[in-house]
Amino acid sequence: MGNIVKQLAVLGSTGSIGQQTLEVVRALPHRFCIVGLAASKNIDLLARQINEFKPRFVYYQSSKLATHLPDAEYEFLSLEDIACHPQVDIVVVATSGKAGLLPTLSAVRAGKKVALANKESLVMAGEIITSEVRRNKAQLLPIDSEHSAIWQCLESEAQDVAQLILTASGGPFRGYSPSQLRKVTVRQALKHPSWQMGKKVTIDSATLMNKGLEVIEAHWLFNMPIDNIKVLIHPQSVVHAMVEFADGSIKAQLSYPDMRLPIQYALTYPERISNPQLPRLNWSDIKGLTFEQPDLDIFPCLKLAIEAGERGRTYPAVLCAADEVAVELFLSERIRFFDIANLVEQALEQHQVTSSPGLEEIMAADAWAREKVIGLASGSSPC
Amino acid sequence: MGNIVKQLAVLGSTGSIGQQTLEVVRALPHRFCIVGLAASKNIDLLARQINEFKPRFVYYQSSKLATHLPDAEYEFLSLEDIACHPQVDIVVVATSGKAGLLPTLSAVRAGKKVALANKESLVMAGEIITSEVRRNKAQLLPIDSEHSAIWQCLESEAQDVAQLILTASGGPFRGYSPSQLRKVTVRQALKHPSWQMGKKVTIDSATLMNKGLEVIEAHWLFNMPIDNIKVLIHPQSVVHAMVEFADGSIKAQLSYPDMRLPIQYALTYPERISNPQLPRLNWSDIKGLTFEQPDLDIFPCLKLAIEAGERGRTYPAVLCAADEVAVELFLSERIRFFDIANLVEQALEQHQVTSSPGLEEIMAADAWAREKVIGLASGSSPC
Repeated sequence: MGNIVKQLAVLGSTGSIGQQTLEVVRALPHRFCIVGLAASKNIDLLARQINEFKPRFVYYQSSKLATHLPDAEYEFLSLEDIACHPQVDIVVVATSGKAGLLPTLSAVRAGKKVALANKESLVMAGEIITSEVRRNKAQLLPIDSEHSAIWQCLESEAQDVAQLILTASGGPFRGYSPSQLRKVTVRQALKHPSWQMGKKVTIDSATLMNKGLEVIEAHWLFNMPIDNIKVLIHPQSVVHAMVEFADGSIKAQLSYPDMRLPIQYALTYPERISNPQLPRLNWSDIKGLTFEQPDLDIFPCLKLAIEAGERGRTYPAVLCAADEVAVELFLSERIRFFDIANLVEQALEQHQVTSSPGLEEIMAADAWAREKVIGLASGSSPC
Repeated sequence: MGNIVKQLAVLGSTGSIGQQTLEVVRALPHRFCIVGLAASKNIDLLARQINEFKPRFVYYQSSKLATHLPDAEYEFLSLEDIACHPQVDIVVVATSGKAGLLPTLSAVRAGKKVALANKESLVMAGEIITSEVRRNKAQLLPIDSEHSAIWQCLESEAQDVAQLILTASGGPFRGYSPSQLRKVTVRQALKHPSWQMGKKVTIDSATLMNKGLEVIEAHWLFNMPIDNIKVLIHPQSVVHAMVEFADGSIKAQLSYPDMRLPIQYALTYPERISNPQLPRLNWSDIKGLTFEQPDLDIFPCLKLAIEAGERGRTYPAVLCAADEVAVELFLSERIRFFDIANLVEQALEQHQVTSSPGLEEIMAADAWAREKVIGLASGSSPC
């Protein structure tokens, strides 16, 4: 089993998770071979990746610009076509935001192993994706560090679970007062204390929206009621998640905060492979591991996400879309930090929910929420 | 499976682990039935246990005193005969010290499930016991909290293990200087900061000998080289042990420090059962989890034990026996605290090791070490 080279397609190869996936592949060249690369931004990096990994299939969002890519032997395909191609064993979905949904569905319908770093697709359409996973005997292999931790803790022991505990670093604004929070800048929000990540997820970590999305993601991945998924602030980011069993025993997964470990685990599962490039926990450096309850008044995004997860239907899609637009507005300095939560809250309040939504209704809710937030923001006070 | 009542024999039923085992049985009366009780001390408590649980087989060390036990319908048997009786499904070996060895072997040879709280038997005769386990398809279910933690973390994933990490509270004398350690009393040594345990293991915790014995125990239980078993001081006793895998990922088991949890897990395995009497971790109470390296100069017993484990053969039996006698001498205030390590060290130094020892050679080494320590102690300065 360990000797068969697995063929990977990396969707979002120029993003943070995509680049780290390629680092893992570089470190374990006898295990993996890149057959597909897809990106929406950073054409220069994509060109270098094509030269290095010589994929058979390539996607770049702008077909006009794609003519500048190197003249190698590969085929241009859509994200969805790469995701379901018979030559692909594992699809790494490392795109950010809504763009992951259709490729994820395509891969799942083709019965692939899907190493999923894109939480939005599960938040938006968890019911559709998980039922397609069951129908097509696909596998969802979480790459998010918290979900990888839960997956590892549940290995062989997925019954008798009392609750899942997701840890959160608390982000750069942990312990801030409301008045301090009013003044924070984009630059401050992009300085995450423990993880190196893409911009969208870094801002989501600062608002704790990221943790709320992860609660909904865990709900679908592990078939656990939202109510049995707790969030604990743990600033050191060493314990990534915990599972509490019926008898009160807790299993936790710990590691140095480095995304290459959960990426590698998803790719090598069920094996674990020594990779000298992965840093190990050094217990002499660990002064103490602390835990505290999240403050939902200071970080209302977490509360909004949990509520949207509990209400279900099209609410999580609205949550995701509203947040995605609001974060973009914040990054371009058109709204303030706490406006992100306000805009998401207003979108959720004004949303006319659809029961038992199919993909079409989810996409419609997404489009509605995006327009709504832009409209609300253009009426809001400038920075 | 959950509906079959399991028949338990509890060897050492009046000791700390024995009493807590009976508490678990009381809490889960539809799961377990006590068919055997055995004790060496505390005849009054044994009498009350007989009245309550109505076992079919009873052992009491002093047959003369045993005539005072209640006149119920039970048979007097030896420890070994109870341990291998066809009516017994699980044998809980909760005797302290050497007394656990022969009953453990008897149970293992009868192919029983053996819930093992007695670490000395594995330390003394790990090779013999584990080879008998394999030959007779018996099962060793660890009750020691650290080994239960490792067992839980290894569940389904016993391959690709890099190292085991046993935590130790550090005992009541953590951070003491050599001069402070010179003055400690029996009373101070018996005050363990986090666990309620029997006297022998409480003193062993204060010297860290207990952790050294646990390293050897883990070596045999999990077939792991001594060199890949590390000890970390963790004063809060919340993380009981950890397993580090080949990829650097660590699984840890956490719980409120209460021996009833590992006891219950061994009895209900592979199921986990909600038991309202077991306290749960309250994250709001946990101020921080800290870890530090053990100081082998201040606590030489840990070093002696690890060395004895590495040297193998009859050295671990000498270690165990010398420690058992030395702890008794300390408890009766005939030697000082740091004399425990000195006596064990001298016994190990003067021991003529036997290669590939059988049970007889192990017993001989045990007897030699006991006599040696008594001899050495009678020559030592009084308290």
